[in-house]
Amino acid sequence: MVVASGSRDKTGFFTQGVKLKASMVDMARSVRKLGQEDPRRVVHSLKVGLALILVSALYHPFYNNFGTNTIWIVMTVVLVFEFSVGATLGKGFNRGIATLLAGGLAIGAHHLTKNLGRVGEPVVLGLLVFLQGSISTFLRFFPKIKASYDYGMLIFIMTFSFISVSGLRDHAIFKLALERLCTVSIGGAVCVIVSILVLPVWAGHDLHNLIALNIEKLGNSLEGFSDEYFKRKGGEACKDDKEILEGYKCVLNSKKSEESLANYAAWEPPHGRFPFRHPWKLYLKVGTLARECAYRIEALNGYLNADMQESSEVSTVIQEACTNMSVESGKALKELALAIKTMVQPSSADSHIENAKSAAKNMKSLLKSGIWEDVDLLKVIAGVTVASILIDVVTCTEKIAESIHELASTAQFKSAEPTLSPEKLHSGQMNCVKSSQILNCPHVVINVSESTPPSSPSESSSAPKASKQRMEAYRYLYFNLYNLFLAQNISPFLSG
Amino acid sequence: MVVASGSRDKTGFFTQGVKLKASMVDMARSVRKLGQEDPRRVVHSLKVGLALILVSALYHPFYNNFGTNTIWIVMTVVLVFEFSVGATLGKGFNRGIATLLAGGLAIGAHHLTKNLGRVGEPVVLGLLVFLQGSISTFLRFFPKIKASYDYGMLIFIMTFSFISVSGLRDHAIFKLALERLCTVSIGGAVCVIVSILVLPVWAGHDLHNLIALNIEKLGNSLEGFSDEYFKRKGGEACKDDKEILEGYKCVLNSKKSEESLANYAAWEPPHGRFPFRHPWKLYLKVGTLARECAYRIEALNGYLNADMQESSEVSTVIQEACTNMSVESGKALKELALAIKTMVQPSSADSHIENAKSAAKNMKSLLKSGIWEDVDLLKVIAGVTVASILIDVVTCTEKIAESIHELASTAQFKSAEPTLSPEKLHSGQMNCVKSSQILNCPHVVINVSESTPPSSPSESSSAPKASKQRMEAYRYLYFNLYNLFLAQNISPFLSG
Repeated sequence: MVVASGSRDKTGFFTQGVKLKASMVDMARSVRKLGQEDPRRVVHSLKVGLALILVSALYHPFYNNFGTNTIWIVMTVVLVFEFSVGATLGKGFNRGIATLLAGGLAIGAHHLTKNLGRVGEPVVLGLLVFLQGSISTFLRFFPKIKASYDYGMLIFIMTFSFISVSGLRDHAIFKLALERLCTVSIGGAVCVIVSILVLPVWAGHDLHNLIALNIEKLGNSLEGFSDEYFKRKGGEACKDDKEILEGYKCVLNSKKSEESLANYAAWEPPHGRFPFRHPWKLYLKVGTLARECAYRIEALNGYLNADMQESSEVSTVIQEACTNMSVESGKALKELALAIKTMVQPSSADSHIENAKSAAKNMKSLLKSGIWEDVDLLKVIAGVTVASILIDVVTCTEKIAESIHELASTAQFKSAEPTLSPEKLHSGQMNCVKSSQILNCPHVVINVSESTPPSSPSESSSAPKASKQRMEAYRYLYFNLYNLFLAQNISPFLSG
Repeated sequence: MVVASGSRDKTGFFTQGVKLKASMVDMARSVRKLGQEDPRRVVHSLKVGLALILVSALYHPFYNNFGTNTIWIVMTVVLVFEFSVGATLGKGFNRGIATLLAGGLAIGAHHLTKNLGRVGEPVVLGLLVFLQGSISTFLRFFPKIKASYDYGMLIFIMTFSFISVSGLRDHAIFKLALERLCTVSIGGAVCVIVSILVLPVWAGHDLHNLIALNIEKLGNSLEGFSDEYFKRKGGEACKDDKEILEGYKCVLNSKKSEESLANYAAWEPPHGRFPFRHPWKLYLKVGTLARECAYRIEALNGYLNADMQESSEVSTVIQEACTNMSVESGKALKELALAIKTMVQPSSADSHIENAKSAAKNMKSLLKSGIWEDVDLLKVIAGVTVASILIDVVTCTEKIAESIHELASTAQFKSAEPTLSPEKLHSGQMNCVKSSQILNCPHVVINVSESTPPSSPSESSSAPKASKQRMEAYRYLYFNLYNLFLAQNISPFLSG
């Protein structure tokens, strides 16, 4: 018995060890996956470490100046350093301004109350703290304030409260407010500098890519749909096809991430291909229309798995027009995505849209024709519904195209280059689309690789244009070096 | 000239004054609207003020104990106090545990490095700060950690960094860590106590109401759809009808708020009608299915504005079956919403679902019949598509009912009371649905009024059950007093 129990214990210990090892391996795998999905996450983590080291180095010499308030530098770095430059700038700005305002107001409140006596002063100060805490908290419920200044309101409440109730006298309170402002400024400056200088992550760039990628996913789903729908009766779809088909699902719930990226992008200085006052809000408009198209595709995809009866003769009749509608809309969307990506006028999509529209027209006249008279309507219903939703999708595609035309003219995209073929995007993009990103629907879709340089040097000849092009070439070189760095130093490290 | 310019200046000044007054009035109006939409916002703001006053009162006597570290109490209150009890508890727990762990680790790091000399110590400490900053920042990208422990990770990085690099010696560093833990605990305790004792806002309660309200909105939209669709050819819809019809739009983008509410609810102790281990995750399942239904309704609503030709003879033929499908699905959804709201078994919805299913069957056989042979197919297409999507909606409704049955059995809802009629919900709810909430789609949909008490005292007779019912009656009384308080003291103040 004892031996048996002992051996059972040993076996138990052994299986636990195996389980532990398995869970460790699982964890290592998920860490690697997280890093491979977006190597910029690894870079961001190292940047936070770097900023912390920098402020630690500042710590000792500054110790005598700021006393225990030096902790505010570390605190600012930890709380302000965000993934993108825009978010970091926004938070830093919020924190700085709120500290300045709250410090000033708190000193004012202190001056107002200092002659009220030993009982009056704390009572009035307490009342002021209560009032500003309540009012500021209520203001945080305003959607506009919540979107851009929520963090600032928090810092305002905090700074005002603790300076007001610190119980310090005139000179000391002024010193406290000033020290807090200095430490916050130093911390914020370190964050912003590290964030911009070391492999910056631009929220605007991410928003631009996210919108382009979302529209491309819609295009892929549509292009694959008709194949899948009419093949369905033949055989099973392979897993890769299914991933591409369901790419549109990411678009359904991307509203929040688009809004926060647009919000951060508004804080960012001109960068890369995006000048000052780039129309970030128009991206949101395109995103909303893309989501409406995605709802239609969701309705379409319901018919891939529905077990509605449909005769094969119906399929053959509607197949051509349906295929044309979905494939041409898909191609148009992919051309539009390419146009956004390369920032050229989206004129190349127009012909596909015309084709899709004429396919929709064909479909309508097909339905008008007499060939349906002998067919059982119940057997037509699924096919007719799919056709009708596809006609709707064509309208949606047209609207998306209009909004992208508006974006292109407001943001002054270049006129189209004849050398760029959609195959280029297609071949380059398939890896991206096939990757695990579709399955995981991450909030910020990552697209590390840059597309081809926006202009070729042979196009123009005047001197200022040439220097501008050189600038762009440098920028392009910089981005490529960044990508090279990511690809060569980080990805192999993660995958090996 | 001078006179003219002077008078122009005066006019300019006057118009500016008028503009300023108008914008002030606008602001006052939006403040009032924000408060009327959810009076709990006003209560929350006052609670934050109260917590700040409480810690200010603590401030002076504690001054000698914690020195300048007393600010951590104020800071903790400002940063930890959230709208719902669950969010406050979660943040407080995160902050407390992270401070404890990081303080312990920082003291350990200090002990490890204290014998490394004047050069070695800061270098090794700096390296440790870099490592923990980078690793912790990377861990924040894990979705599970991001959802529940993001704030804790931030506090961990911050506390470890600033205790490690504080440059203090053994005794002082221990004192610093202990003081920080004490101040954070005091601040957290004040938040939790004020949050729970003064008119608590429970995230679980909000999630429960949000899901019920969302399903009810779907029901209203469906119930109104067929009327609107078949009446369309007659006259214009009134504005109120349109609001009810478009109520489903809130559901399309409610994923994030549902997820965060479920996340907060998991932190909450048993409260009101929700016992320990209430199955909050099942609400998310219901929410996902509701969203799928909302996508279908979005597709349906496209046909309200589409200018597809449709003959009136087609309308008359399909009208009955379509109306039955949409109205019965709508009624079923509203019964299901009522069942969630009152926490009774949703058996009353079953008959409506059966009706909707038989209507779908009728529709199918109608399509099979010979009456369509003389009709131009193009004129049938819109009607047939609507009918087909409605068949899909019936399936969705069935799925939602199944998931709510699962929720009801897991959460042990009571068996249905025959006295509760759907009209009760309907009449009570119309105000809510008609209110501005639909237009604004706030993140957390508010439903301050409680429904009827979950059980009537006459139902059972045994002693423990009676005492339980008394408890529930007290709870009910408490909620009603709360509502009375809100309705009488705050709403008139806001609307007057």
